[in-house]
Amino acid sequence: MDIVQFIAAKRDGQEHHRGELREFVLAAVGGAADYQISAWLMAAYLRGLSEEETVELTGALRDSGRTFPLGHFGPRSVDKHSTGGVGDKTSLVIVPLCASLGAVVPKMSGRGLGFTGGTLDKLEAIPGFRSDLSVEEFERIVSRVGAAIAAQSADLVPADGRLYALRDVTATVDSVPLIAASVMSKKLALGCPSVVLDVKVGSGAFMPDRERGQALAAAMVAIGTAEGRRMAALLGDMSRPLGRAVGNSLEVLEAMETLRGGGPDDLRGHCSLIAGEMLSAAGVARSPEDGVARAEEALRSGRAADKMLELVEAQGGDAESLAAGRLPVASLTAAVHADSGGFVARVDARAVGQAAMALGAGRQRRDDGIDLGAGVVLRHTVGDEVQAGEPLATLHASTEAHLHAGLARLLSAFSVSEAAPAAAPLVHEVIRA
Amino acid sequence: MDIVQFIAAKRDGQEHHRGELREFVLAAVGGAADYQISAWLMAAYLRGLSEEETVELTGALRDSGRTFPLGHFGPRSVDKHSTGGVGDKTSLVIVPLCASLGAVVPKMSGRGLGFTGGTLDKLEAIPGFRSDLSVEEFERIVSRVGAAIAAQSADLVPADGRLYALRDVTATVDSVPLIAASVMSKKLALGCPSVVLDVKVGSGAFMPDRERGQALAAAMVAIGTAEGRRMAALLGDMSRPLGRAVGNSLEVLEAMETLRGGGPDDLRGHCSLIAGEMLSAAGVARSPEDGVARAEEALRSGRAADKMLELVEAQGGDAESLAAGRLPVASLTAAVHADSGGFVARVDARAVGQAAMALGAGRQRRDDGIDLGAGVVLRHTVGDEVQAGEPLATLHASTEAHLHAGLARLLSAFSVSEAAPAAAPLVHEVIRA
Repeated sequence: MDIVQFIAAKRDGQEHHRGELREFVLAAVGGAADYQISAWLMAAYLRGLSEEETVELTGALRDSGRTFPLGHFGPRSVDKHSTGGVGDKTSLVIVPLCASLGAVVPKMSGRGLGFTGGTLDKLEAIPGFRSDLSVEEFERIVSRVGAAIAAQSADLVPADGRLYALRDVTATVDSVPLIAASVMSKKLALGCPSVVLDVKVGSGAFMPDRERGQALAAAMVAIGTAEGRRMAALLGDMSRPLGRAVGNSLEVLEAMETLRGGGPDDLRGHCSLIAGEMLSAAGVARSPEDGVARAEEALRSGRAADKMLELVEAQGGDAESLAAGRLPVASLTAAVHADSGGFVARVDARAVGQAAMALGAGRQRRDDGIDLGAGVVLRHTVGDEVQAGEPLATLHASTEAHLHAGLARLLSAFSVSEAAPAAAPLVHEVIRA
Repeated sequence: MDIVQFIAAKRDGQEHHRGELREFVLAAVGGAADYQISAWLMAAYLRGLSEEETVELTGALRDSGRTFPLGHFGPRSVDKHSTGGVGDKTSLVIVPLCASLGAVVPKMSGRGLGFTGGTLDKLEAIPGFRSDLSVEEFERIVSRVGAAIAAQSADLVPADGRLYALRDVTATVDSVPLIAASVMSKKLALGCPSVVLDVKVGSGAFMPDRERGQALAAAMVAIGTAEGRRMAALLGDMSRPLGRAVGNSLEVLEAMETLRGGGPDDLRGHCSLIAGEMLSAAGVARSPEDGVARAEEALRSGRAADKMLELVEAQGGDAESLAAGRLPVASLTAAVHADSGGFVARVDARAVGQAAMALGAGRQRRDDGIDLGAGVVLRHTVGDEVQAGEPLATLHASTEAHLHAGLARLLSAFSVSEAAPAAAPLVHEVIRA
């Protein structure tokens, strides 16, 4: 292909001819120059991609590596993607929860970067837990347990890895069609007939703006539908952290409480909603509402928690310690207190995420090490009434320097006002197709 | 500098802070990644650069290498840049013409690419002519002859070379501020107090669109003015080839005729206009009109031709052959004839340029070899009355295959109509600052 012509077409706002994006993706893995891929990425960022282009790009990315045939994990297999956010430990709850009710959930996840965490980092807070499964191990565990949570295999959609690495260093990450194609190429490669998307909007989400969140959800649903998948997308609130715990060990402990029917109401409610959609899409429940009811029952009964322990054990993790709530938590603690009495009006999710990162729980760069035991636990969240001097949050870190850095960031996260704030919905809307 | 933030700012249409473009250019020569430079180039292409940004970028490019102090070549030194076009051999005429009248013209030029030719290729049609002068040789010849025409020295503005190489392969060449900064950085580096720009518009120009040509001229004049140069820019017509000859040897022969007061009227007229501006800017003539009158006299008197022979000899060229009109011209010839009688209404410059390239006179890629003797000579141009069957142009090539390829392209260049076409001006406008 004439790649300069191809770049020029997108630069000029033209729609690529059918087949050209496939050729481009082939060229990208076949040694096309970084600088040409980057120039195209910036042109695509600024000029956009049509729905047809986005679907073609997604298919081309999927086909750049190994794929599982549609339905490979069975008709009840269902995939799930969260765009991530501060305190977002939903995968830890939903995957075993849905599997405990007969859905099959082969889940490939990523690591945290910046102020949001990643599922794999969280799971690795469980001693012995292995997420770097071979494709064969992954399949074996899914077939035995009904679920597995593994690192994205390098065999799948290698072209996305190449594109993503360049997007990351050229300010072209935050593009709706490029994100949609990247996420959906990985979903399509796994071959699940149903996919549920958990798109977060608000300060603690990767995509703060609600309209852009809607656009992203719509773009991903359109791709899945074009490829014959049953799709649902929830637009969830991430203006405040989800649940109370932010940080790897702390979040696993909170997820475990939630799997036992406890945990914070917002987290349990959000997980039930998503699980309801997944169970309905997978044909395990008659409707999303029926799915929610079954999910709540599985949480109450301990069935979901048992499935989590089974999954952790199958992946080499210390299920006993997890069951006993014994995970390494950083030993130094401090607290943030309310200056005045009143109602908690705001707990800014991004500020909390940045505080957790400052405490050592997150990474700024891909190869930074992280402190699995560090993080923040909110003692109060939006809407709670507090007295002056009452602790609002506890911080955990391994060094005084980290503790002070985290404290400095966390102070700005809270606002306390005289009047009670209006209740914000957990989920703004649901798209089904 | 945080280069991802820098790219993101331009991506979002922001103006860079003072100093950031300098840091970026430093980074570009200091090993910044190609893919990041390319992403910024595409963002700059699509979002544009403000006048202040363009001036800063130009200064930063200039300062990336060796520079001559302002006035190094004396108060009467004047530089000239043509944006190039089909049959544009003006440098070959103007440089010795102005030098013959007391101006000093240290000229660094480029090679041809695509359908337009380059001054260096043309001069190398003169046996022995050397354009790869060291800076010291260049200075010595300028001081002795009053002019020299050399290849752009790699010591000057190396950052522009780095940026241009990436623009060439990422579809980001055709951007007004990037072109203006690239051209003017080289002009500023030479230190001439006056600069005259010969901007061509029309099908045979690099920039066909008149409004974009005006914008480019205005951007370059603004940069020069901001840097304290006397500036003039002419917006010239390039809808048809300039003069009659297109191809390296053929153009040198035509330039030599013009230097002797002959040659095609349009070429001689255009060269006199530009020379008039240069002589006036350099303080050799009292006004552009006075400059034109002096230029015409120097052409008629043989003074300009003598200076050309002196320059050629100083640069190792065979002045005797040139004076005698003995340059290698390709031996196979063919002609294009008028299908019907009437007036030549159109001679499409781009089509003629492409025909010349097909004949072997131009290069598609930077490292292609070229046939210095190949090309096209128009027997008639726009406005001429012709009979059916009369030859319109002669083609020269070294192989039958080249000759046929050139013929096929040239046929579409001509239109003959019953009515005489309206006369088109040579120069659309002049900007002086």
